[in-house]
Amino acid sequence: MTLSTLAGAAGPAVAPPPPRPDQAAVEAVLTALRDTFGELVTTAAATREQHANSASWIVAQPPDAVVFPQCTADVQKIVRICAAHRVPIVPFGTGTSLEGQINAPFGGVSVDTRDMNRVLAVHADDLDVVVEPGVTRKQLNEHLRDQGLFFPLDPGADAALGGMAATRCSGTNAVRYGTMKDVTLALKAVLANGELMTTARRAKKSSAGYDLTRLFVGSEGTLGIITELTLKLHGIPEAIAGGVCPFPTVEAACKAVIATIQIGIPVARIELMDALQVKAVNAYSRLSLPETPVLFVEFHGSPASVAEQSEHFGEIAAEHGGGPFDWATLPEERSRLWQARHDAYWAANALRRGAKAIASDVCVPISRLAECVTATQADIAASGLVAPIVGHVGDGNFHLALMVDTEDRDEVVRAEALLERMVERALAMDGTCTGEHGIGQGKMKYLKAELGAPALAVMAAVKAALDPAGIMNPGKIVAAG
Amino acid sequence: MTLSTLAGAAGPAVAPPPPRPDQAAVEAVLTALRDTFGELVTTAAATREQHANSASWIVAQPPDAVVFPQCTADVQKIVRICAAHRVPIVPFGTGTSLEGQINAPFGGVSVDTRDMNRVLAVHADDLDVVVEPGVTRKQLNEHLRDQGLFFPLDPGADAALGGMAATRCSGTNAVRYGTMKDVTLALKAVLANGELMTTARRAKKSSAGYDLTRLFVGSEGTLGIITELTLKLHGIPEAIAGGVCPFPTVEAACKAVIATIQIGIPVARIELMDALQVKAVNAYSRLSLPETPVLFVEFHGSPASVAEQSEHFGEIAAEHGGGPFDWATLPEERSRLWQARHDAYWAANALRRGAKAIASDVCVPISRLAECVTATQADIAASGLVAPIVGHVGDGNFHLALMVDTEDRDEVVRAEALLERMVERALAMDGTCTGEHGIGQGKMKYLKAELGAPALAVMAAVKAALDPAGIMNPGKIVAAG
Repeated sequence: MTLSTLAGAAGPAVAPPPPRPDQAAVEAVLTALRDTFGELVTTAAATREQHANSASWIVAQPPDAVVFPQCTADVQKIVRICAAHRVPIVPFGTGTSLEGQINAPFGGVSVDTRDMNRVLAVHADDLDVVVEPGVTRKQLNEHLRDQGLFFPLDPGADAALGGMAATRCSGTNAVRYGTMKDVTLALKAVLANGELMTTARRAKKSSAGYDLTRLFVGSEGTLGIITELTLKLHGIPEAIAGGVCPFPTVEAACKAVIATIQIGIPVARIELMDALQVKAVNAYSRLSLPETPVLFVEFHGSPASVAEQSEHFGEIAAEHGGGPFDWATLPEERSRLWQARHDAYWAANALRRGAKAIASDVCVPISRLAECVTATQADIAASGLVAPIVGHVGDGNFHLALMVDTEDRDEVVRAEALLERMVERALAMDGTCTGEHGIGQGKMKYLKAELGAPALAVMAAVKAALDPAGIMNPGKIVAAG
Repeated sequence: MTLSTLAGAAGPAVAPPPPRPDQAAVEAVLTALRDTFGELVTTAAATREQHANSASWIVAQPPDAVVFPQCTADVQKIVRICAAHRVPIVPFGTGTSLEGQINAPFGGVSVDTRDMNRVLAVHADDLDVVVEPGVTRKQLNEHLRDQGLFFPLDPGADAALGGMAATRCSGTNAVRYGTMKDVTLALKAVLANGELMTTARRAKKSSAGYDLTRLFVGSEGTLGIITELTLKLHGIPEAIAGGVCPFPTVEAACKAVIATIQIGIPVARIELMDALQVKAVNAYSRLSLPETPVLFVEFHGSPASVAEQSEHFGEIAAEHGGGPFDWATLPEERSRLWQARHDAYWAANALRRGAKAIASDVCVPISRLAECVTATQADIAASGLVAPIVGHVGDGNFHLALMVDTEDRDEVVRAEALLERMVERALAMDGTCTGEHGIGQGKMKYLKAELGAPALAVMAAVKAALDPAGIMNPGKIVAAG
């Protein structure tokens, strides 16, 4: 069906239908898994629920079982057992994804890679590292510190690197160091038939065939399970400078960001908080920042270079009515500020008792960023909702933390409508429905509006070609209609 | 077949069998093309031959006809006409690819995008540009100059941007600015069924589903024809400094490169020439460089930053026995040097009368670069061949220009064996058989050794899913066995 569709018939191709395993199939898988993995398989309710629990409002859909593979061969065994009975497989890292990626809407087995957490090789001369998927970014940086190296990507949460690759994660450093698509040199992944695929060698670049590394980065476990990653590293910068710069308006802050990027200042992080978020952070982290829009900025380089960058940025900020930009190279002061930035989500949560912060993100061309943020703020005000904004504005990416009382049906409806308008606004500005959280279940409904039917047909055809039985994380990204 | 193979059967999947159109099918296509495009279709022998002619020793295989579409809708019409008769389609940019990508081994229609050469939009604030595929990199930079912007990728040849994306091109600036996979924000491509697909919006990053942009970058026309590209731009650097630095050995030069990269100097270009190549360049470009291995180096940034980078690099070079590193910021001197670097291919050609320079590249982890280059030099000497080496060494990528008398069968055999050993050496060092020339026809035989059967099966499955009739540039990258 898929093939003939792309060959010319009308209408978009569709992904393979999700498996709907009967209880007998699940029991058969559980028996086989227990025979093979013993205590490393569990069906305990608490564990199953924890494996479908995330900081989103997407309803949790627990798997039938959770299994903890110890190595790649274990993952292959699990996939072969599940494939034999057409039972779904849902990969799990640290459970910090935000769009329902870890849910099991058709039941099946959650494959938790927490024990596959070895750093397999550090190649200091080549600035790369080989890791198992359960290694977290903080664990990796702890491991690397003595060698003067670091892994730059920082989504806030201490996510597992396998999950970060699977969701094409980025975060605060992406403006300088790129996203997971840029820092992933090669992957190993177990395919739907249990075979282990290598996507690339360790050379820094290659033009050898289809870019399977990038095809799997961001595929959210729907094409296979990542079991090994080769990642690019950087030398720890000789000097780091940073600080906070207030602006009279979001628009002024965004214009300063555009000028900074355009003039080529290699800013390492440039993060917007709107006035409400600053207020939340002041309360939560006991800071006394001016309660106006601010930019948190950081520069990496030689001492002379970071001083030059900081001064140059201060001038740009002043030209746009911002400042003063007080910058420092002292680690303590910087750490305190960035901790506050990272705690923005918790600070938002503390804004309103009894409410849950629902995080959602969009990304637009940077020229439209001020307009998009300002229109979204007006929409929040008109909706009578509480929703501070933070943004990786160097990339045109920003997040709402919608403070929702999920028991209040009317409020939930207004919040959903607000998020839908935010996505429509981003798409109307040639942006994307998600800069860094992925599609999962939560944003599937926007994908066609963003990319059109032919792109969806191609995604469905790729999915059907690589996972014809539809067992790999079904119900995410592309799914049968 | 493909689906069931990935579902679990033994052996790798295979790509769809290439079409073998009979003369009647070709005649039917020609009639339909002439009806639609009139004078823009030709079957003149000279034009057909020119469309299969490249600077490689791969035997030219001309298409049955060449057609010159004027717009995307024309490309869709061509694809639909060819698809109806299962006649192959071979995209053509400027014909500067090196591994047989433009050949028509099964006949068919060469689709030359030379007239699709409009710059559709420059978004200066967003640092991006939208172009048709026939725009060349020099044409684009000419267009951008007044706005203080530039497109960094520079493969030497004035290639068309569509072809550069299709072959995942990189070149001298890639160490700083990345390859086509990094600078391509979005593509439009005509699929095998004639539908037009958009891979992404114009946002700087996105995690919206499978990375179709990167799937098509490097796919060499085997999945579709690129008809529009959105590319990242950069501000023209405030200052550029550069120069040439001699080293006693290739190994010393490579070690200086590793130290430069590892310490985080944001070098814009760092290019190795071995002593033979320097000798060729001195003769061809009337320079008087020391005839030892040299690095051509360039730095981009503020005046203070490029001075700091240049001095720092000079110190590193001296620590490795290199130098003196004379650097300058004067455009004239730099242009003269880089012109010489770009003329390296022609300089090599002039080394030996009656011989043709056959270019081939590999890429290895940078820690293995010195060893790989040195072993390759020894192999060249033992083979009694003439083959200067140039390299984009910041990426671990280097090229041989094998000076071969293609009439001398024995010499051709020795040269082929030498190239085969170079690839084997690179693969043994965890490198790739091609850093930037692509697979085409010339390197298909190495792909399985590089990536293994499962990766090839995935490529074949993707190819079969998107091009079930096998009409899109058949016989390249993955093909029926």
